[in-house]
Amino acid sequence: MTIIKIGGGASLNLQAIISDLRNLNDDFIIVHGANALRDEVAKKLGYEKQVLVSASGYSSVFSDEEALDIMMMTYAGLRNKRIVEMCQQTGINAVGLTGVDGKVIEGKRNKGIRVKENGKLRIVRDFSGKPKNINVDLLKLLISNGYVPILTVPIIDENNFAISSENDDIVALLKNSLEAEKVIQLIEAPGFLDDANDPNSVVKSISKDELERREAQVDGRMKRKMKALIKLFETGNTTVYICDGRIEKPITKALNGEGTVIS
Amino acid sequence: MTIIKIGGGASLNLQAIISDLRNLNDDFIIVHGANALRDEVAKKLGYEKQVLVSASGYSSVFSDEEALDIMMMTYAGLRNKRIVEMCQQTGINAVGLTGVDGKVIEGKRNKGIRVKENGKLRIVRDFSGKPKNINVDLLKLLISNGYVPILTVPIIDENNFAISSENDDIVALLKNSLEAEKVIQLIEAPGFLDDANDPNSVVKSISKDELERREAQVDGRMKRKMKALIKLFETGNTTVYICDGRIEKPITKALNGEGTVIS
Repeated sequence: MTIIKIGGGASLNLQAIISDLRNLNDDFIIVHGANALRDEVAKKLGYEKQVLVSASGYSSVFSDEEALDIMMMTYAGLRNKRIVEMCQQTGINAVGLTGVDGKVIEGKRNKGIRVKENGKLRIVRDFSGKPKNINVDLLKLLISNGYVPILTVPIIDENNFAISSENDDIVALLKNSLEAEKVIQLIEAPGFLDDANDPNSVVKSISKDELERREAQVDGRMKRKMKALIKLFETGNTTVYICDGRIEKPITKALNGEGTVIS
Repeated sequence: MTIIKIGGGASLNLQAIISDLRNLNDDFIIVHGANALRDEVAKKLGYEKQVLVSASGYSSVFSDEEALDIMMMTYAGLRNKRIVEMCQQTGINAVGLTGVDGKVIEGKRNKGIRVKENGKLRIVRDFSGKPKNINVDLLKLLISNGYVPILTVPIIDENNFAISSENDDIVALLKNSLEAEKVIQLIEAPGFLDDANDPNSVVKSISKDELERREAQVDGRMKRKMKALIKLFETGNTTVYICDGRIEKPITKALNGEGTVIS
């Protein structure tokens, strides 16, 4: 089993990625983002991102109901169905699902952010959370009958509300639940870069131990990314391929080691 | 098997409809619209409906690529996933699908419209068509494993392109393919009205023969609606319930004969 993670960047070549799936000799599942599309549509709809500052000074994006509506339109609607259509055109019988469908990805809603309002502390909860359980039965039912699941957010929380979640966490949970041997991450860079500003600094291979060393050295979004990568190695034997999703034959090239290989 | 058709009008009470599904003692599938939502989002996105006038003088809405994008956002994305979420909240393990997913609804693309441009005749094809085949295996696979399919447009054409289609035609094809005994149509009126402008003119019951008589007397959109109703009686024994989707307990009331019953 291979898990393909397609990022949500504007410059990814979806057509090239989907066409190249024919060269993958393994069962697979796709998990995709759509953040550039989401931002574009949100802007057109006049939706302004809500940013909350917690009492302790951290700021974070607040996923209100309208943010979830837009997520459903762009991730679950437009991006998911166009990917399913491209799959069908390349002979892959894809079925697009959010985590809400058949409770494929169940999660736990975040507890909320403590904010100060008019001098008073108040807990504000948004529609976001962490994935905790995969409906492996449904995924295996589809795969064993010849269908390829194409997954995206939202996921469903413990009270059956749709919530947003990080794709990195979803991919890690899927990998461990399905005991996938390979994870291919298609991003807007030629691989894992030693220097984020230098596209020529691709690290050809990293060991799991080195990931942990690197995680200790970075912070912010990069730390989160490293933590998510480390999670992929929690169970079983895994190889993770991080490669350029903007080029032709990206999956073939990834498996040939043209990006970064982590094992 | 019961097929529930939920219209796409703005005043339908989705929460009341979904909550009342618990009182239905039968396997079921939902087919839903979202036309009011689609129009609202299209307007916000600044999309203008393309209307073509054919050489013979008929005008029709032209489904271009952007119209399909908006259909995916509103029907397949926002409306479908919110209905799935409501189902989950009421204990129904719903799985939302468009006709493109697993090729659940395959269709044939319309041949195109003959238009006159600068004095020359030209055929213009849009992304629309008629449903021709249901993937009954996938629907039965899901239903027999405890999942309730929630279907919507787009459907998929003979060349694997996403196309729009009329929900009435989809419901008729589903009914005949699944040999459903009941079809419940939830609309923005108390039932089938003898006089479209008089909500007190609900026709309590109509026979299939009377449908055919009435079809001969009307035209335009009404004729299309009558033809679609007649199609529901092409195979097997069927009862069609047309009832108000704006009120509490609409399904219970429909089955109690509070709207229009056609058999």
